[in-house]
Amino acid sequence: MNSGPSPRASKVMPISGFPEYLPAERIVEQRFLDVIRETFELHGFSSVETRSIEPIDRLSAQGEDADKEIYAVSRLTGGDEDTRWGLHFDLTVPFARYVLENAGRLSFPFRRYQIQKAWRGERPQEGRYREFTQADIDVVDVGELSSHFEAEMPLVVADVFSRFPVGEFVIQVNNRKIPEGFYLAIGLEDVTGTLRIVDKLDKVGPNTVRAMLVDAGATDEQAAQCLALAAIRTADLSFVEQVRALGVTQPTLEEGLVSLAAVITTGMANAPGRIVADLRIARGLDYYTGTIYETQLVGFESWGSFCSGGRYDALASDGRTTYPGVGISIGVSRILGLLLGNDLVRSSRSTPAAVLVGLNNDDERHRSLAIATALRGRGIACEVAPSAARFGKQIRYAERRGIPYVWFPSGDSGGDEVKDIRSGEQVSADPASWQCPTADLHPSVTRS
Amino acid sequence: MNSGPSPRASKVMPISGFPEYLPAERIVEQRFLDVIRETFELHGFSSVETRSIEPIDRLSAQGEDADKEIYAVSRLTGGDEDTRWGLHFDLTVPFARYVLENAGRLSFPFRRYQIQKAWRGERPQEGRYREFTQADIDVVDVGELSSHFEAEMPLVVADVFSRFPVGEFVIQVNNRKIPEGFYLAIGLEDVTGTLRIVDKLDKVGPNTVRAMLVDAGATDEQAAQCLALAAIRTADLSFVEQVRALGVTQPTLEEGLVSLAAVITTGMANAPGRIVADLRIARGLDYYTGTIYETQLVGFESWGSFCSGGRYDALASDGRTTYPGVGISIGVSRILGLLLGNDLVRSSRSTPAAVLVGLNNDDERHRSLAIATALRGRGIACEVAPSAARFGKQIRYAERRGIPYVWFPSGDSGGDEVKDIRSGEQVSADPASWQCPTADLHPSVTRS
Repeated sequence: MNSGPSPRASKVMPISGFPEYLPAERIVEQRFLDVIRETFELHGFSSVETRSIEPIDRLSAQGEDADKEIYAVSRLTGGDEDTRWGLHFDLTVPFARYVLENAGRLSFPFRRYQIQKAWRGERPQEGRYREFTQADIDVVDVGELSSHFEAEMPLVVADVFSRFPVGEFVIQVNNRKIPEGFYLAIGLEDVTGTLRIVDKLDKVGPNTVRAMLVDAGATDEQAAQCLALAAIRTADLSFVEQVRALGVTQPTLEEGLVSLAAVITTGMANAPGRIVADLRIARGLDYYTGTIYETQLVGFESWGSFCSGGRYDALASDGRTTYPGVGISIGVSRILGLLLGNDLVRSSRSTPAAVLVGLNNDDERHRSLAIATALRGRGIACEVAPSAARFGKQIRYAERRGIPYVWFPSGDSGGDEVKDIRSGEQVSADPASWQCPTADLHPSVTRS
Repeated sequence: MNSGPSPRASKVMPISGFPEYLPAERIVEQRFLDVIRETFELHGFSSVETRSIEPIDRLSAQGEDADKEIYAVSRLTGGDEDTRWGLHFDLTVPFARYVLENAGRLSFPFRRYQIQKAWRGERPQEGRYREFTQADIDVVDVGELSSHFEAEMPLVVADVFSRFPVGEFVIQVNNRKIPEGFYLAIGLEDVTGTLRIVDKLDKVGPNTVRAMLVDAGATDEQAAQCLALAAIRTADLSFVEQVRALGVTQPTLEEGLVSLAAVITTGMANAPGRIVADLRIARGLDYYTGTIYETQLVGFESWGSFCSGGRYDALASDGRTTYPGVGISIGVSRILGLLLGNDLVRSSRSTPAAVLVGLNNDDERHRSLAIATALRGRGIACEVAPSAARFGKQIRYAERRGIPYVWFPSGDSGGDEVKDIRSGEQVSADPASWQCPTADLHPSVTRS
């Protein structure tokens, strides 16, 4: 399967928007992915992976100018396929198709997580990639989806982010029914258009949004009301009173307030301080029908949301049956782009190896290998020195990679010894019983 | 980032050669991938991931009719790119490019593993996919690569396969210098052509190979000698004597014998019974220059090799510096295709959840959620029942997914209880201290 090297081709260059990491950075990425997977699994989500390609007509049915971002895939020499394929640009479209395709073999409500790459041909910029990794959870049911799942999603995200070495974060929650009912009540019929404008608040500020709303036909007072609603943000249930104080009542608005209150109540009990009602959150995407989520890192608000999602009444439909869902997606590559690009997180070493087993001389490689085999059998990652250089050079080999321990096989004069090359401490050791300190067993990934 | 559902598109169909798994099968795949990663890391290999695309001229420089298998990638609406891209068809070509691109930032010898998808537009058939996962290790050095790494590779593979629930396996090792020197010594100048024919032994048998060799210009005696060499297979060093008994000596042959003896000696000491010298192994690829490997599952020899590789003197080269390497690649999708397609391995459940936390009634969801939070905090994966159905129905919900335990929150009359729904045993339990049996903490993946 090893299809071989390429001595003839010599062009070597990075491709804009297709990030690649060095080994120490990759360890950081792996740690984040491990945390995400472990937490998703603790919350009882099952893993699904879908193929990387979908029929283009399925991908481009998304509207929103999706077409221009799609990467088409075709056999170089022309194939026998009747269908045109494209790389998926998110994990929701393929998951919806997977649900329809396997509906008879899945148990509903179905809790799935999916951590995969996706591809979008957009213009690369900081935090935006053409090849990127997303980590999604969704709960999907048949016909009806119980609303309590909307309260559960941000708990999972809070659990994930609190295990990341990223400091404080806040999950902002809104319910689409609140602005929808509110806008209708104050006489703004174009709910989607209004939402799209309000969604720009973070980017352009309230004055520009006010002007845009008026341009779109709102009165000054209507625009002011929209901005007043969007300004409400509370970590407890007081948002309800603040909305009522605006003097607007409407059935859809009431429904939204009750629903958001339930999400915030659950958040206060299970993830205190992490989840806030933020009525500015709009998610300018017209398929969300209930709760919507965004997630910001405190101190990095200008980077926008690293984790977003919401409820949709039709994740998928085959014409007869509708599958409503609620989901949330972590932008793994975006977070790593921020953290690694700004040197905010680092790994203690560039290899999984905790120990370099030294080599007395080339004829004794079998002894060093036996020590390594014993350590590995006990879960201690290690490698054997590549050559029987003098020990100073072997220690530098370990140092360069951040390997904390060098093992010296016994010589004529005594037994094995192991040296912590950070402290210089060297002690007698037996590969069958030596305890590697837990903190050194794996690379540590910490905020720098 | 959740780009939403697709209510308009309705076509739903599998794509030949692009396998997708149901959740229980995916758990099997995850377990295999976990074993591979953990073992690679124990042996001190660092993870690298490369982008999915490479310039097509780099991919098609491989010869071997690679062109016709390449999937080209382009922006659907036409892009601004000058270069034509294709999806990588293995992990070696992108790794060679990565080494050249990052040579100044890597420490050599560089031990890397890479577990990723690759794509080939070949005709799908059992065990052959168009999208598939490979797991590669390579050691690459600058200028010179010490030969002991050739002995180390099969130890890693033996360690991986002995952790798989697949039964017996055998790693077959040869050295290209043995047939090369042997063929030259008996007067067959076309070494590559002869190797390609001998490589077909498993598929077409000795009589056809003999006929093909004669067709290609060999005498009957030369053909017989080739077959005699290819028939040698020993688990110890006796292959050396068996080759000598053929009465041929030649310097390259001698070099190959010494080198293979070193690999087998290391294998006998560190992975007894797993590694054999098998002089039939040819790997019909002309860039291997030393040791070559294949791996078969005992009882499934007709499936061919699940893990292959070898040494190449030029993994990569930038014209000035050459990077020799030795590598081996596990065909993860091929193994899973065999095991899952023939129901040879299965997972005990279709979800990571070990516990379903029951629900007394909808008003008490916060109590069930608090229990779930406590269990998760202690590393026990669980979910809360989706609705306050009667307990019989909640138990069936768990049963259908293979969740072994159902937790009953305390009612008016007493404390919490947990039931093993397989045995029916039900005991008092506290979410702050209940011990989930280790065997049930994660799904078990076993040979069926």
